[in-house]
Amino acid sequence: MSKGRLEAFSDGMIGIFITIMVLELKVPHGQDWHALRPLAPNFLTYVLSFIFLGIYWNNHHHMLHAVERINGKVLWANFHLLFWLSLVPITTGWVGDHPRDPDPAAVYGIVFLLAAVAYTILYRTLVSAQGEHSKLAAAVGKDRKGKVSLLLYAIAIPLAYVRTWLAFALYVLVALIWLVPDRRIEKHAA
Amino acid sequence: MSKGRLEAFSDGMIGIFITIMVLELKVPHGQDWHALRPLAPNFLTYVLSFIFLGIYWNNHHHMLHAVERINGKVLWANFHLLFWLSLVPITTGWVGDHPRDPDPAAVYGIVFLLAAVAYTILYRTLVSAQGEHSKLAAAVGKDRKGKVSLLLYAIAIPLAYVRTWLAFALYVLVALIWLVPDRRIEKHAA
Amino acid sequence: MSKGRLEAFSDGMIGIFITIMVLELKVPHGQDWHALRPLAPNFLTYVLSFIFLGIYWNNHHHMLHAVERINGKVLWANFHLLFWLSLVPITTGWVGDHPRDPDPAAVYGIVFLLAAVAYTILYRTLVSAQGEHSKLAAAVGKDRKGKVSLLLYAIAIPLAYVRTWLAFALYVLVALIWLVPDRRIEKHAA
Amino acid sequence: MSKGRLEAFSDGMIGIFITIMVLELKVPHGQDWHALRPLAPNFLTYVLSFIFLGIYWNNHHHMLHAVERINGKVLWANFHLLFWLSLVPITTGWVGDHPRDPDPAAVYGIVFLLAAVAYTILYRTLVSAQGEHSKLAAAVGKDRKGKVSLLLYAIAIPLAYVRTWLAFALYVLVALIWLVPDRRIEKHAA
Repeated sequence: MSKGRLEAFSDGMIGIFITIMVLELKVPHGQDWHALRPLAPNFLTYVLSFIFLGIYWNNHHHMLHAVERINGKVLWANFHLLFWLSLVPITTGWVGDHPRDPDPAAVYGIVFLLAAVAYTILYRTLVSAQGEHSKLAAAVGKDRKGKVSLLLYAIAIPLAYVRTWLAFALYVLVALIWLVPDRRIEKHAA
Repeated sequence: MSKGRLEAFSDGMIGIFITIMVLELKVPHGQDWHALRPLAPNFLTYVLSFIFLGIYWNNHHHMLHAVERINGKVLWANFHLLFWLSLVPITTGWVGDHPRDPDPAAVYGIVFLLAAVAYTILYRTLVSAQGEHSKLAAAVGKDRKGKVSLLLYAIAIPLAYVRTWLAFALYVLVALIWLVPDRRIEKHAA
Repeated sequence: MSKGRLEAFSDGMIGIFITIMVLELKVPHGQDWHALRPLAPNFLTYVLSFIFLGIYWNNHHHMLHAVERINGKVLWANFHLLFWLSLVPITTGWVGDHPRDPDPAAVYGIVFLLAAVAYTILYRTLVSAQGEHSKLAAAVGKDRKGKVSLLLYAIAIPLAYVRTWLAFALYVLVALIWLVPDRRIEKHAA
Repeated sequence: MSKGRLEAFSDGMIGIFITIMVLELKVPHGQDWHALRPLAPNFLTYVLSFIFLGIYWNNHHHMLHAVERINGKVLWANFHLLFWLSLVPITTGWVGDHPRDPDPAAVYGIVFLLAAVAYTILYRTLVSAQGEHSKLAAAVGKDRKGKVSLLLYAIAIPLAYVRTWLAFALYVLVALIWLVPDRRIEKHAA
C-alpha cells in the first residue's frame, strides 16, 4: 500500500485544520491598533494550537519516515488521529473567546489528550505492521515523551478548575517538550 | 495518464469536504459545558459523515491501488463521485440542525445513495479501462457489499417518513458494513 | 524544474475553489423540502461552475501530461490562470443570488473569458518552453475548441443584457463543447 | 528526510491562505455593477496579496529545487515562515476594509516583513544543512534582493503614518522586484 498517499492526505488535513483556525481569527473591526486588542486571546491560543499541530505534523513526518509497510488498520488509526485533530479549531476558538473559564480550558486539553491517545494507537498499529525488530520500534524505544505528555494532560485538565492559567501553563510545557523533533528516530535514521 | 494526480486530487477534495463540515460545527456560544449541549446533534452527524467520508477515502485508496490504467472517462467518473460527496457537508449541517425531521434525514440518505451509485459507475469505468482478467475485476468480484449498501439506502430513505431514527439506524449499519476496508482487494493485492 | 509540484499546487487550488463554492451553498433554513426551493438557483449555478472547474482540471491534466519542460514563465502563467479561477466562487455566488439580472450574468462570463485567455497564454508559454516540434504543439494543433470558446464568451456577455437566459445557454454550450477531454492530445499521447 | 513532503505541505498551506483571502472577498450584495464598487479596495489588496503569496510560492519552489538535504531544523524554519504567511488573509482583509488608515497599512507591512525574516532564516537553515560549497549557497550568493526587500519594508512601515499610499507604493515596489523568479538560482540550475 502506498505510504505516500497516507502522508499527503494527513498533511492536507492538518493544513486544513490550521486554515479553519485562521478563519476563527476574523478580520478586526475598527481602523487602528485598539481594534487588535480584543483579538489578543484568540491570537495567543491560535499560536499555541498552530505549534501543537506543527508538532503533530513533524512527528508524523518522522514516524512515517521510519515506516516500511502500512495496512488497512493503519489507515483507520491515522483517520482516528485526524478526527481528534479536526476538533482543534473548535476548541481553540472556544478558548480564545473565553480565556478565563475552566470548561473551555478543560475541553481544549481533553481533545489534545485524545489526540495523543490516538497518536499512541497509530504508533502501536504501525509497529505491529512492521513486525518485531523493525527500524521504527528500535528508534522510538520506550516513548518516554509520549507517556509524559499523557500524564501532563491528565494533570492539567482537572487543574483548569483550580486555576485556569495553570492548565495552560502545562499545555505550553507539553509543547516545549515536543518542540524538538524526535531525535531518537532522527538519530537512528541517520 | 497519471494515477497519482487523480489520487492526490481526490484526497484533497475529500479532505476539504471534511473541512467544510468542521466549519458547520461552529464555536460554542457560552463559557461552560451547557454551551456544548445544543451542539450534540451536529456533533453526532459530523462523526457519522466523517466516518462515511473515511470509508470512501479508504475504499478509493484500495480500488485505485489495484488499477493500472486510467483514461478520460475515469477522470469524469471520479469527478462525478466527488460532486455528490461535495454535498455531504450541506446535508450533514441540515440534519444536524433538524435531527428529528424526515426531509433532512431522507435528503442525507439520497446524497449518499447517489454517491454510492457514482462509486459503482467509477468502479465499472475503471474495470473496463483495465481490460478483462484484470487484477481489479478479479479482486472485487460480485461486489456484494456495494449492492447491499444501495439496497439499505433505498430502504432507509422512505423509512425516514415512518420513524426518522430508523433511517439513521440503517445509515449507521451501512457504515459498519464498510468500516472494514475491502479485504477482497487487500487479499488479492497481497 | 518539477512538473509534479506545479500539478499538485494547481490541483490544490482548484479543489479549494470548489470548496469555497460549496461554502456559498449554505445549509438550508427550515426543516422540510420547501427549505430547499430558494437554494435552487444557487445549486444550479454551483453545478455549472463545478463542471467548468472540472473541465479546467481535466484539460490542465491532459496538457501538463504532454509537457516535458517548465520554467519560471510557466509558473507565472499558471498562477495567472489560477487567479481568474479563484474569482469563480464569488461570481457563482453572485449569479446564484441574482439569477435574472444581467450584470451578474455578464461578470460571470467575463471571469470565465479571462480564465480562458489565461489558459491560452499558459498553453503558448508551455509550447514555447518545449521548443518547436514538441509533442504538445503537435497534439493541440489549431486549438479550434479554445477559439470557439473565446468567441462564445464574447457573444454571451453582451447577450446577457438582451436576454439573461441566452447568456447562460451559451455558457452551457461552452461547457458541453469541452466536456469531452481533449481527444487530440489523448490520441497523440496514446 | 523527504523534501517532497515538505514541498507538498507548504504548497497546500499557501493555497489555503489564498482560499481564506477569497473568502474575505464575499459575494456582492445587490444585483448590478454598483454592488461591485464597495468591493474595489478589498479586490485590489487581494490582488496584491495574491501576487505576494505567488512570489513566495515561486521562490520557495526555486530554493527547494536546489536543495539536497533537509533536517528537523528546516521543518521548523519552514513552519515558522508558514505561520507569518497564515496571517496574510487577516491583514489583507483589514487593509481592504480600511484602505486609508495607517495602522492596518503598517500591520500589513509588519506581517510581510516578518515573513521575509522567516524566509531568510529558512534560507540560512537550508544552506547550513547542505554544507559549504553547496549548489544552493553558490546560487543565491549575496541575496541582494532579500536585503533590499527587508529595507523597503522597514521604510514603508513608518511611512504609513506620513502618507498611507506611500507605504502601499513601496509594497508594490517589493512585489515588482521579486516578480521575476530568482534568475540566479535558475541560471545555476540550468
